[in-house]
Amino acid sequence: MGTVVALTGQVGGAKLVDGLYRLRGRDLAALVNTGDDYEFLGLLFSPDLDTVLYTLAGIANPASGWEPTGESRALHAMLKLLGGPDRVVVGDKSLAAPLLRTALLAEGSSLTEVTRHFCRHLGIEAKVLPMTDDPVRTHVLTDDGAIAFHEYFNELGCEPVAQGLQYAGVDQAMIPQEVADVLDDPDLEAVVICPANPYHSIRPILEVPGMRELIRKRGAPVIAVTPIVGGKALKGSAGKMMRELGHEASARRVALEYLRLIDGFVIDTEDAASAEDLRASGIEVLIANTVMRTAEDRNALARAVLAFAQAIRARRLQEA
Amino acid sequence: MGTVVALTGQVGGAKLVDGLYRLRGRDLAALVNTGDDYEFLGLLFSPDLDTVLYTLAGIANPASGWEPTGESRALHAMLKLLGGPDRVVVGDKSLAAPLLRTALLAEGSSLTEVTRHFCRHLGIEAKVLPMTDDPVRTHVLTDDGAIAFHEYFNELGCEPVAQGLQYAGVDQAMIPQEVADVLDDPDLEAVVICPANPYHSIRPILEVPGMRELIRKRGAPVIAVTPIVGGKALKGSAGKMMRELGHEASARRVALEYLRLIDGFVIDTEDAASAEDLRASGIEVLIANTVMRTAEDRNALARAVLAFAQAIRARRLQEA
Repeated sequence: MGTVVALTGQVGGAKLVDGLYRLRGRDLAALVNTGDDYEFLGLLFSPDLDTVLYTLAGIANPASGWEPTGESRALHAMLKLLGGPDRVVVGDKSLAAPLLRTALLAEGSSLTEVTRHFCRHLGIEAKVLPMTDDPVRTHVLTDDGAIAFHEYFNELGCEPVAQGLQYAGVDQAMIPQEVADVLDDPDLEAVVICPANPYHSIRPILEVPGMRELIRKRGAPVIAVTPIVGGKALKGSAGKMMRELGHEASARRVALEYLRLIDGFVIDTEDAASAEDLRASGIEVLIANTVMRTAEDRNALARAVLAFAQAIRARRLQEA
Repeated sequence: MGTVVALTGQVGGAKLVDGLYRLRGRDLAALVNTGDDYEFLGLLFSPDLDTVLYTLAGIANPASGWEPTGESRALHAMLKLLGGPDRVVVGDKSLAAPLLRTALLAEGSSLTEVTRHFCRHLGIEAKVLPMTDDPVRTHVLTDDGAIAFHEYFNELGCEPVAQGLQYAGVDQAMIPQEVADVLDDPDLEAVVICPANPYHSIRPILEVPGMRELIRKRGAPVIAVTPIVGGKALKGSAGKMMRELGHEASARRVALEYLRLIDGFVIDTEDAASAEDLRASGIEVLIANTVMRTAEDRNALARAVLAFAQAIRARRLQEA
């Protein structure tokens, strides 16, 4: 068995990463979106990184997915009392990672190094890798101009109509050596694009210069899992955003977003009818239960995805 | 009735400030030591300022005095889990002020402005004024060199033998306009040096260039209250530090530290025997209960101190 690299963002992505981690342990590398990162009260918040860390460490609140279990809000209440901002509500536990991250970055560590430090102490054996150590900030283009994603999401509740997205800083972003190493591994077995919003969770990763080429470099099967089931996002604003950008909100449309990058696409049993259409576009399709309600759901989907990649690889060898 | 200015640090100082505040409200200005301030995890901690704020806002934990009531440690536990420092334990509520302070300072506010912002939101009508907006850091000189006070106190538990103290940065420190205004007020009625360690709580305030002259400028009575009762500090390390510096740990010695600055000195009923000795040094003496266990103790001591100042002023007028 070789290395599996999972591109991820949001809670849905972290759930599949968790399923893959239970199967592969230290042979898994999560390549995590940092386009949703933001500064608040002088601290660097990396929501997608923290969601993966909490999930793999087994301390994520199963109800929300993105914060530690048993979260409290004592600091936030005191902050309000002192006349601080009351909008972005940050839990006491959830503030620890941004606080320590900001302090370690100020001391000269890279985001990759800080994340490795967190993994080691949380007992996470998989590699959790930021897509870049450079600042990339996703902006949603609206009638009121470009809005930073965290503001669009946290403060505006995804209300404004999205006309497009911009990934500020991505042109200057470098691929960290650790990311290059896992994608250039001769033992690379599969690249999995986890179920997450294609526009603000996955696309920023792909936009880092050289990333698409690196993903395809070793020729390992690239498999994407739909974040859309029955025309709706399981969580988050993917469906709304797709429609606003002029597309149908469908698994098929997500697959088209990844055209020329992926070898296989996983749709939900609920959308089985669209399989033929996708296959006609030259994409191999797996129909599976993509809705991860339980830990077993995560493991089952992870197993199915890796078996799918294995089948694609076997068929290729046969054809060659 | 005129303005009362109280020089303060530590929990004992804040208690007398509280008593004075109940009597004088907006006509009280607390002039607060910042020599014990420190940076931790990139945040500026101002323990003496925060103690005064919590105390005057009525949200200080009566048991400790220096942290808000109902404090929790969720963030600290998470910080440890992530491999962060585990020494300085910071409560969830206690972190709010340093976090917001640091963010507001980074935006260009002065420490004086940040503190005023906190006061306004906490409903504190008294002025709470940092002794300076410039960084001053008290160091304890030991066999192992100069140790920052917060390290000496928080990490070393005041164990090392103190050979002296240094107030790094004080020579360059400026008196904020707000401090100059209250001390230069024609209605200045009294200056009260609250019961606190003379070396690291009060002395840094007095060392700010021009401060001693400013305190005496209007000729208002300057009254100090002993932090030493029966040869021991009620709280903190004043007694130990005095002995290590080669002095007796006594109220009399504290009075000598303030010689040529104060007009009157308040000793505890327990030390009544030393009154004559002090009077021989030319200092007027009041014997009172200086141990503030209850809110009424604070108010009673504040009333006694102000009456003492009033008596000194009256006697002066009579003699003139």
